[in-house]
Amino acid sequence: MEQRISFITLGVSDVARARTFYETLGWQALAQSNESVAFFQCGGIVFALFGRAALAEDAKVAPYGEGFSGVALAHNVREKHEVDLVLAEVEAAGGRILKQGQEAFWGGYTGYFCDPDAHIWEVAWNPGGTIGEDGSFHFARE
Amino acid sequence: MEQRISFITLGVSDVARARTFYETLGWQALAQSNESVAFFQCGGIVFALFGRAALAEDAKVAPYGEGFSGVALAHNVREKHEVDLVLAEVEAAGGRILKQGQEAFWGGYTGYFCDPDAHIWEVAWNPGGTIGEDGSFHFARE
Repeated sequence: MEQRISFITLGVSDVARARTFYETLGWQALAQSNESVAFFQCGGIVFALFGRAALAEDAKVAPYGEGFSGVALAHNVREKHEVDLVLAEVEAAGGRILKQGQEAFWGGYTGYFCDPDAHIWEVAWNPGGTIGEDGSFHFARE
Repeated sequence: MEQRISFITLGVSDVARARTFYETLGWQALAQSNESVAFFQCGGIVFALFGRAALAEDAKVAPYGEGFSGVALAHNVREKHEVDLVLAEVEAAGGRILKQGQEAFWGGYTGYFCDPDAHIWEVAWNPGGTIGEDGSFHFARE
């Protein structure tokens, strides 16, 4: 199994509502999107929004689940002050702030929010790595 | 908020066990990894394994959660027959097969497994897109 992630799919209760949330943040869905699923190209991976029950059925797992998902995505920014700007933008778009931007013990500055389906995102400035022009994140070589 | 995902972090009960699972699949952790966290570069994003309770604490959410996480990652392969090969490799590494490879209504061929912490992965061949030499997945232009 090569070291590769191709898709991240979030199960949501209402695809249109979830799609609108990310579009309000400025994201653009791919033409392959439809009423049942929304796709967003993020660098070399695709971020997808799909019905939660349909995702569980596709994976052959029971649809019941509650509480902390155990998963967090992160959106890294190039400059420290952008963390607070992004969190403000998210709040205006209807996201819920879980943690305002603050210094992290590892030297970064981060905050957290959740989307309308409680999927968790960190917004982070990490001085230990770089963001390329193509949006890719790479740690500095040690 | 630019259209970008920088990290995918999975909360796990035992970082060493989870790291071993992915290493058994042939993945290589970055030098920045330690006992508390493991990082794997996947193209332009970083895949991280972090203690589940620590992740909840960092995000300021209650750690309780059970059942379906509502999230699935996907590992796409270049050739259809590779889906079954990867699933067999995963099973040998201690992953649990949720769904053996089968034809999908959208023209692909996919199966699902979960890792030792029940995080869900799809292994997919998708003829509607291409995998670049760098491992990036892109849908065909419509």
